[in-house]
Amino acid sequence: MTDTAVAPRTPLTLLGTGAMGTALARVWLAAGHEVTVWNRTAARAEPLAAEGATVAARAAEAVAANRLVIACLLDDASVGEALDGAALAGRDLVNLTTGTPAQDRARAAWAEERGARFLGAGIMAVPPMIGAPGSGGYVFYSGSAGLFEEHRETLAVPAGTRYVGADPGFAALHDVALLSAMSGMFAGIAHAFALIRPEGIAPKDFAPLLVDWLTAMAPAAHQSAEGLQSGDYTRDVVSNLAMQVAGNATLLRTAEEQRVSPELLTPYMRLMERRLAQGHGDEDGTGVVDLLDLRGR
Amino acid sequence: MTDTAVAPRTPLTLLGTGAMGTALARVWLAAGHEVTVWNRTAARAEPLAAEGATVAARAAEAVAANRLVIACLLDDASVGEALDGAALAGRDLVNLTTGTPAQDRARAAWAEERGARFLGAGIMAVPPMIGAPGSGGYVFYSGSAGLFEEHRETLAVPAGTRYVGADPGFAALHDVALLSAMSGMFAGIAHAFALIRPEGIAPKDFAPLLVDWLTAMAPAAHQSAEGLQSGDYTRDVVSNLAMQVAGNATLLRTAEEQRVSPELLTPYMRLMERRLAQGHGDEDGTGVVDLLDLRGR
Repeated sequence: MTDTAVAPRTPLTLLGTGAMGTALARVWLAAGHEVTVWNRTAARAEPLAAEGATVAARAAEAVAANRLVIACLLDDASVGEALDGAALAGRDLVNLTTGTPAQDRARAAWAEERGARFLGAGIMAVPPMIGAPGSGGYVFYSGSAGLFEEHRETLAVPAGTRYVGADPGFAALHDVALLSAMSGMFAGIAHAFALIRPEGIAPKDFAPLLVDWLTAMAPAAHQSAEGLQSGDYTRDVVSNLAMQVAGNATLLRTAEEQRVSPELLTPYMRLMERRLAQGHGDEDGTGVVDLLDLRGR
Repeated sequence: MTDTAVAPRTPLTLLGTGAMGTALARVWLAAGHEVTVWNRTAARAEPLAAEGATVAARAAEAVAANRLVIACLLDDASVGEALDGAALAGRDLVNLTTGTPAQDRARAAWAEERGARFLGAGIMAVPPMIGAPGSGGYVFYSGSAGLFEEHRETLAVPAGTRYVGADPGFAALHDVALLSAMSGMFAGIAHAFALIRPEGIAPKDFAPLLVDWLTAMAPAAHQSAEGLQSGDYTRDVVSNLAMQVAGNATLLRTAEEQRVSPELLTPYMRLMERRLAQGHGDEDGTGVVDLLDLRGR
């Protein structure tokens, strides 16, 4: 089949037409998929009818319409409510709803008990990035490899796909881990802007320096990954923990001079100091990961 | 002069031969500069003699040797001690010593009183990046524009140069702001690794995803810069503060599931919640910068 324009598209059901669900539905519709949608507040699904979607009155009807069922709801509880009483046997359930790894694992077991295959997911994109191939947005998937392989092309329509393992919680875990790292970066960015703010430095002049610097330094994560796998945090250290802790004093003193609260910096500094006090001054900063681990405590 | 190999190189004095000072001296020597070095512990300067440096017994002698004097010492107090009694009139003093903006401003005034021009600096590199043009390392300079222009070529030998204004504290301020942002990013990276650690996810498989994600998200700083300059944090918002705060619950719950301390995430989340409680749910996250500002409190 060389004319992909006439290739049969897998029909699918989408539960949830919030901002993300609506963006997804539009892209699948535009790509020629038959899409059945359901939303708890029906009025929010209606605009998609004009674009060719079939709007189901009840979630169970939407689930009955197609084998491939994609949930993009508020939270895991909403998934349970929507699917309560729906016939899931033989269905392929892809859960794009934001949740924790444990929620996706429990939901996978729940779906499998009802005869459905399950794929957890974590969307690394905001709605404007859906259907925009150059945006860099993508979706983590984990769980049923059979489901993923069978629907890989359909799933790839709205955004890039990355399958990260058979554990249905791994997609959510990857998602949350990246979002958590981003949260730390954004905290650092906020502190940096607060520091320059009292001065005549234009944020728009400063931002490119900040973006370049963070981009140049992000690959330090590879060094930590090496250390975590080898268990040795002292290899190829350029700026050791003792030097880093000494440097922190300048960061704190500057915050004080600039009248900026240090609250976003101090928790990480405290952990660096704790690790140093344990006699690890010759390490890089990776030992902080050990201190965050509460298992066994 | 087309044969740059025989172009006259500015002779210079370097105070401080720690890891960074030694790296700098080596690169200037290799480029054909006459370099006079001094170090409080003289033995640490001796290895450079074998590479062609002149080792001065006292800092005042080193300062007397050349008009261009570069300090790369432990801290600002060390600069004051080293230069105490040295004849600074007519000297061009470049301070590569790590310090705060206020320290560099005070040191500039101090140097100018003694008849020297002053340039503050902030080194955005570690020693292995010195003299390695592809490394991405560079140095912020601020203060005397005349000094910077006159010695621009010499200063560019060990690393790229970025002049950021006449205020002698701006180089240190830029330096500290970028390091603070990096500290936040590293805190986020540590949390992310801690989250995946209890699972069978190899850190080396996860690191590239983390680096790509942080690199893709760092440009969000441009959006904050726009907001800070316009004073309006509600323009072009894709994920508003209310949505972000709701999402934080999933990050915290996942940390709990994975038995990871949330201490590196919670301070930023608390500020987001405070801003939300002030009625700014329609903003992006930039309002956190306002909350860090302690001026007037």
